[in-house]
Amino acid sequence: MIGKFITFEGPDGSGKTTCALGVYDRMSKEGYDVIYTREPGGIEIAEQIRNIILDPKNTMMDARCEALLYAASRRQHLVEKVLPALAKGQIVLCDRFVDSSLAYQGVGRHLGIDEVWAINQFAIEDHMPDFTIYLNVDPQIGLNRIDKRDYKDRLDQESLQFHQDTYDGYQQVVAKFKDRMIVVDANQDAQKVIDDAYQIIKEHLNV
Amino acid sequence: MIGKFITFEGPDGSGKTTCALGVYDRMSKEGYDVIYTREPGGIEIAEQIRNIILDPKNTMMDARCEALLYAASRRQHLVEKVLPALAKGQIVLCDRFVDSSLAYQGVGRHLGIDEVWAINQFAIEDHMPDFTIYLNVDPQIGLNRIDKRDYKDRLDQESLQFHQDTYDGYQQVVAKFKDRMIVVDANQDAQKVIDDAYQIIKEHLNV
Repeated sequence: MIGKFITFEGPDGSGKTTCALGVYDRMSKEGYDVIYTREPGGIEIAEQIRNIILDPKNTMMDARCEALLYAASRRQHLVEKVLPALAKGQIVLCDRFVDSSLAYQGVGRHLGIDEVWAINQFAIEDHMPDFTIYLNVDPQIGLNRIDKRDYKDRLDQESLQFHQDTYDGYQQVVAKFKDRMIVVDANQDAQKVIDDAYQIIKEHLNV
Repeated sequence: MIGKFITFEGPDGSGKTTCALGVYDRMSKEGYDVIYTREPGGIEIAEQIRNIILDPKNTMMDARCEALLYAASRRQHLVEKVLPALAKGQIVLCDRFVDSSLAYQGVGRHLGIDEVWAINQFAIEDHMPDFTIYLNVDPQIGLNRIDKRDYKDRLDQESLQFHQDTYDGYQQVVAKFKDRMIVVDANQDAQKVIDDAYQIIKEHLNV
């Protein structure tokens, strides 16, 4: 038996982590063999790469270097954590995956969705998610949620324009992969977002 | 005025560093505005990436992750060091560049030259070397030279088969880019190799 690979995507402040963990909690209580993960996911090599990307001291980082580092971290996390879980038949709930790079580096950094897609195809080969929960949040609501956080990493500190471009990027990604994307209204309160995502996932698992 | 970008390539033990430094020494004594560099070249972000690649503890590293990390390190070194030097009109002697990834990751790791070329094109855009000195050494002579080294990093420790595949990879790379490649017989002693490379470079600079 082969598992299911489900990713959670959306702009900063859309509530991806809260939603994915909430779904994980309900599914594991019901006895599903499910894991929650996000890059770098405790994978030592991916952690080392992530530390370089997010270090606020690395202000000289070029956008293409950043995109290649995300792809490298993604590859290692996929090979060491996601694929072995799928091979065991587990349901993998993954907080961000390739779509994040398309939106953030492809559009937010203006590298182009197709170019960033190409290096990510090298990284993931044909291991795309079975489907993706896209948490659609108004940019201003997302930003208000981020503002309440205490610690801000190098990407959180980016300009309002970067966040707006990333939001626009996600809209393009949703259009490009509409067969894989399931849009959830993430302006609702957290519990309702979890409920919606949970119901959708259950329906898809039963098909 | 725009500088010249010259790379030195060849399998392990071909004497790239000795040759490039020897040429650098003669040219700088003659008053050329020349620099010698190699990735990561003292660039902080590229150094951090390189440490991950070469750490002998990172035995779990996937080949595609490794290829993406080399491309990321190359990008940052190019942007922070090579391009500014070329913009100042300097001659840049660079010890290894994109061809190394094609030979080592493309063929040595069996990822395919075209696939590795694609991610490196993302990294370097159109900033290819003006020409490349290829140090052609018999694999066995190269390996004998490596065996005399005290410290061996993660890549030096690879199998004989990996080194043979890398050698074959370089032959493919030389054939693919024959207009850019200038082959020097690197089985000769070090001083003769430097002389040959120096003469070739001087001729090309005078054209």
